[in-house]
Amino acid sequence: MTTVRYHSDEPELDDLYEQMSEKDLQPLWAMKGLLTPEPAARTRAHRWSAKQMRALGERAGELVPIDRGGDRRVLACANPGLNGLPYATSTLWAAVQFLGPREMAPAHRHSPSALRFVLEGDSVWTMINGDPLHMAAGDLILTPAWTFHEHHNPSDRGMLWVDVLDLPVVEFLESVFFEEGPSEDVDPKTDPQSASERYYGAPGLIPAGQVEPPAENYSPLLAYRWADTDAALRHQAELTGKTDVSVRFTDPVRGRDVMPTLRCEMRRISAGTETALQRQTGTRVTTVLHGSGRITIGDNEFDIEHGDILAIPSWAWTSVQANPGSENLDLFTTSDAPVLEALKLFREERS
Amino acid sequence: MTTVRYHSDEPELDDLYEQMSEKDLQPLWAMKGLLTPEPAARTRAHRWSAKQMRALGERAGELVPIDRGGDRRVLACANPGLNGLPYATSTLWAAVQFLGPREMAPAHRHSPSALRFVLEGDSVWTMINGDPLHMAAGDLILTPAWTFHEHHNPSDRGMLWVDVLDLPVVEFLESVFFEEGPSEDVDPKTDPQSASERYYGAPGLIPAGQVEPPAENYSPLLAYRWADTDAALRHQAELTGKTDVSVRFTDPVRGRDVMPTLRCEMRRISAGTETALQRQTGTRVTTVLHGSGRITIGDNEFDIEHGDILAIPSWAWTSVQANPGSENLDLFTTSDAPVLEALKLFREERS
Amino acid sequence: MTTVRYHSDEPELDDLYEQMSEKDLQPLWAMKGLLTPEPAARTRAHRWSAKQMRALGERAGELVPIDRGGDRRVLACANPGLNGLPYATSTLWAAVQFLGPREMAPAHRHSPSALRFVLEGDSVWTMINGDPLHMAAGDLILTPAWTFHEHHNPSDRGMLWVDVLDLPVVEFLESVFFEEGPSEDVDPKTDPQSASERYYGAPGLIPAGQVEPPAENYSPLLAYRWADTDAALRHQAELTGKTDVSVRFTDPVRGRDVMPTLRCEMRRISAGTETALQRQTGTRVTTVLHGSGRITIGDNEFDIEHGDILAIPSWAWTSVQANPGSENLDLFTTSDAPVLEALKLFREERS
Amino acid sequence: MTTVRYHSDEPELDDLYEQMSEKDLQPLWAMKGLLTPEPAARTRAHRWSAKQMRALGERAGELVPIDRGGDRRVLACANPGLNGLPYATSTLWAAVQFLGPREMAPAHRHSPSALRFVLEGDSVWTMINGDPLHMAAGDLILTPAWTFHEHHNPSDRGMLWVDVLDLPVVEFLESVFFEEGPSEDVDPKTDPQSASERYYGAPGLIPAGQVEPPAENYSPLLAYRWADTDAALRHQAELTGKTDVSVRFTDPVRGRDVMPTLRCEMRRISAGTETALQRQTGTRVTTVLHGSGRITIGDNEFDIEHGDILAIPSWAWTSVQANPGSENLDLFTTSDAPVLEALKLFREERS
Repeated sequence: MTTVRYHSDEPELDDLYEQMSEKDLQPLWAMKGLLTPEPAARTRAHRWSAKQMRALGERAGELVPIDRGGDRRVLACANPGLNGLPYATSTLWAAVQFLGPREMAPAHRHSPSALRFVLEGDSVWTMINGDPLHMAAGDLILTPAWTFHEHHNPSDRGMLWVDVLDLPVVEFLESVFFEEGPSEDVDPKTDPQSASERYYGAPGLIPAGQVEPPAENYSPLLAYRWADTDAALRHQAELTGKTDVSVRFTDPVRGRDVMPTLRCEMRRISAGTETALQRQTGTRVTTVLHGSGRITIGDNEFDIEHGDILAIPSWAWTSVQANPGSENLDLFTTSDAPVLEALKLFREERS
Repeated sequence: MTTVRYHSDEPELDDLYEQMSEKDLQPLWAMKGLLTPEPAARTRAHRWSAKQMRALGERAGELVPIDRGGDRRVLACANPGLNGLPYATSTLWAAVQFLGPREMAPAHRHSPSALRFVLEGDSVWTMINGDPLHMAAGDLILTPAWTFHEHHNPSDRGMLWVDVLDLPVVEFLESVFFEEGPSEDVDPKTDPQSASERYYGAPGLIPAGQVEPPAENYSPLLAYRWADTDAALRHQAELTGKTDVSVRFTDPVRGRDVMPTLRCEMRRISAGTETALQRQTGTRVTTVLHGSGRITIGDNEFDIEHGDILAIPSWAWTSVQANPGSENLDLFTTSDAPVLEALKLFREERS
Repeated sequence: MTTVRYHSDEPELDDLYEQMSEKDLQPLWAMKGLLTPEPAARTRAHRWSAKQMRALGERAGELVPIDRGGDRRVLACANPGLNGLPYATSTLWAAVQFLGPREMAPAHRHSPSALRFVLEGDSVWTMINGDPLHMAAGDLILTPAWTFHEHHNPSDRGMLWVDVLDLPVVEFLESVFFEEGPSEDVDPKTDPQSASERYYGAPGLIPAGQVEPPAENYSPLLAYRWADTDAALRHQAELTGKTDVSVRFTDPVRGRDVMPTLRCEMRRISAGTETALQRQTGTRVTTVLHGSGRITIGDNEFDIEHGDILAIPSWAWTSVQANPGSENLDLFTTSDAPVLEALKLFREERS
Repeated sequence: MTTVRYHSDEPELDDLYEQMSEKDLQPLWAMKGLLTPEPAARTRAHRWSAKQMRALGERAGELVPIDRGGDRRVLACANPGLNGLPYATSTLWAAVQFLGPREMAPAHRHSPSALRFVLEGDSVWTMINGDPLHMAAGDLILTPAWTFHEHHNPSDRGMLWVDVLDLPVVEFLESVFFEEGPSEDVDPKTDPQSASERYYGAPGLIPAGQVEPPAENYSPLLAYRWADTDAALRHQAELTGKTDVSVRFTDPVRGRDVMPTLRCEMRRISAGTETALQRQTGTRVTTVLHGSGRITIGDNEFDIEHGDILAIPSWAWTSVQANPGSENLDLFTTSDAPVLEALKLFREERS
């Protein structure tokens, strides 16, 4: 017997349930909570503290060597609502990754899409299909589905960043493919500007004529630099006069989200202000880049500061308060919204 | 402690794992089987026997009254690989529904999309947002996301059909919404042809001018009649000379799948022939409408006959053999392919 | 000197104009009527009388043999506003074509898209890339861009129909390509139902799996039968209770207009009623299939009856009055609306 | 009699032709050259010399005041193949516009789409719906359909630039609408960076959340700066090692052409090299920004230098030779390719 066996006080019905379970069938009329008036999120609102992650990560750096056996020194955020699964939310993997001085995480590729968001430092390069992308604080680096990627740190300083993947979605859809890189002896390259940026980094300009069209499934622009993001937020705040502004990272050739499953946005909340309430279907992972404050997610409140990672469940009313002072609150958020939009399941409300 | 606690023989590492679990973190380097070379499907290949489902369904008809408390007399297929979840595959709900003489399943609506595929009988009407759709053997009836629907049987004969829903997908995305219908005292309507068919059922013709455009999220044609499907399969077999032909059910206004998450196809395999091997990412539920034969799914083989329901896991090589004799094998298949295509995760191979 | 020479009473300016014309330049400031507040249509509202076209066509049948030299026995509607061009409107070719008993119009193909709308008779087949399509009264037959097509009449009765082409658009865009058919000795085929209809004529059903996907540029359904069109109009009138109903002919695989440049609609105005005023950018050609009445186009009024062809200029207020009696007024209209929509130039107003 | 009267040596046929012309009908069988094997372009290959245009434009600046009556001091290129029409090609308007010191061209808007390409100088601002866009050498400025636009020159130096419009297309489609600006006394604004650029000028970043989505019909980025274009061309040449590279100007939010009817590209041909032959359907207008050389268009050859404007007809084989020396040849080309692509009439060949 492999499925749930329902029970009833009525002997005849109980006997029917017995037979049903033997045949891998279940009675809809006896199920509870299958169709709820509003989403019954398994994801719980949660905060992972930057200080704790850093301390544990550094300890891991001392104890855990990085090599083909271990591959990546990554601490995965495990949401308390997900029964021990190593996922930050029902649909998103989030983690901090540590790369020590002179270390290298070798090449591989997988069908899940990934991104790297850099909290601090500037000593690491990620190579995507052979193109070296420098990683520095505030940068967003894409490692799209099925692209070979490796990280290497030619400096004397260790570095850490945040990884976000759609792994739970791809695993749910029984579509995980994985492949090691072509060689462990790859020659790590460094370059101040990637080919990706030189081809696709000019506003509104794309190669024409004899250059091959970019892959259909993701943005050909693989790095979004903090200087650009910061300027876009500042301009928008000036032009609109608002204290709560956001920019979306997009595929410049098709104007879509950067990858089919992941939406990335940077939000700036002026110091000393509070945002309106908002909620949406699907889940989100937010990382604090600058500033400090307080976030309300449903019935939960969390103090937040640089490096903290937050899980935001579906349909939970959320607002953010930025502490007064000199520094605005800059929040980097990844969501599964492109999935919900594609499937016509996206709903959003603002108070 | 809410997450998994990893262990190590090295005391220092074990101590680190202890601290990590306290902080809801997990070590990627210690995980096994996270990224597999090919999909590690949780869904198992499985067959639910029509004879068994019918016997249990009829027994349920005797024991379980249908009313607001119980709502639907449905036996849900529970895949043995899913730890007791009432889902036929990781992404699809499949079930048989029984409606007795003079019974009625009252109106409700939900964000999951549903369809009804009729195995036999012709005594039931489904009302979709007030439009009565007659259900007869071989027909496909859509009850798209967030449309009010109810079933009623004004005859003296009971009837059963197969339900397929994208409920696992919507539940996974934390997006289940549900609402009871406006009244229990609705006047059930019957009509030989639905408004849906009269507006959208002529080949290549759609209302123009002053008629409201159809809802964006699903096909405005809600019933696909067996006579049409049968003729399309017969024509295709004649025109191509092939012994394995298929038609896809589509939204006639936009040429897409009938609903954003579900693909529906009918396949006809000529009696006495065997198909080539094929596999694809994502999962499928297949129902046998006519004929009998044998299906191979990965390492499993099942004899199949009218009314059997099959679960086909992701990436499993599959082929079908139709028994010799007078009757072709007609298979109705629902898959999550539109989801995988939208997210660029769809892969398919043919031998 | 190849361009216009402007003149001025001021000698210096006149001298400048002289020099400009020598260099193929013109002074914008001296031009009149270049940018008008509303469209200054060159197309004039016009009616071509069925009776006259029929008489002249029959006379042509006596005098003009059909062969490779002459190819098609066609009388082209020449709009009085277009300086002798053989076009019904600025963007549409319209004509009546006559095919005598036992005659055949041999195969060719061209980049302009064409359609045939049948006013009466049922004795002709059009072959499209080898697929024979029977033509009968009320049918719409597509001969899309770059498909080989030929017409043959195996009967003892002559037949006539209306041709509409986007030739003025393709000629304007300097994109006319033309090719003779592969052989004059082609074997004309007749069949009660075309392959096109057997593949794509079932409502909402399209071939799946191993059948080649249809060409991207046009509807794979090439014939729209009067029985279907008539039923769709009747159903819509019943369901809406309106006296002015329309259906659009569409590509059933993509839900777009039948061809990239041409929109086709059939409109039914109940006997004894009058429509509201409407206008739109772009031009239209309307043919009367059944009934009689009166059409108002801007300042013009025309009595209309079976077989009459009308040119409707851009942005002219238009309304139609159906004569009382037993017969509704059925109007078949082809427009360039898909062109205007694609270029974001479509505007429409209703009074 | 308003249409062409055909003639025949056979009296009976001649009589038929007489009657046909009286009824505004024409005999297809008597027409010549209607459907040609390849495009019979009316547009002729042509070059307008920068030196001549400048001399005549400066003379116009002395003689023709700019005001509401005259509105724009523009010299329109009139292609010799178009019977005196003031169009550079069958589908494109091209012209040079002169704005003297302290002059202003007042606001208006129209359904045709326009662009400004700056050959030299930096003293003028164009205001688009109130947003001031600085114009400097090498910049591309969009004035999309139905946006109010005005030009003003607050400096002591006159300036000239090239205008390209889709006016022939819009006029052909009988869709010209025009409106004067709200006031002649508008306050001209200058700003080093437009709101358009501050909102949409960061690579891959677009406003999210509470900012209104951009208009659907055109790029929200209205200025493309030479420094960006130059860098993109340089990068592409370095990365590909090619001597013939091109970039396309696109809508950064949707990844389409900048406007629905106009494609804009900048091409760089290395000094001393020659390109392969290429041809495409539809017409093009090319302006020389830097360098000098020779262009072959069909049977025509033209020496070209800074500021020259070229008309390239449909389907004419074209190649370009850049003079040896220190300066590459930079060519700015506008084409109607988006129109042909939307209508599935685009064909291209390379030798």
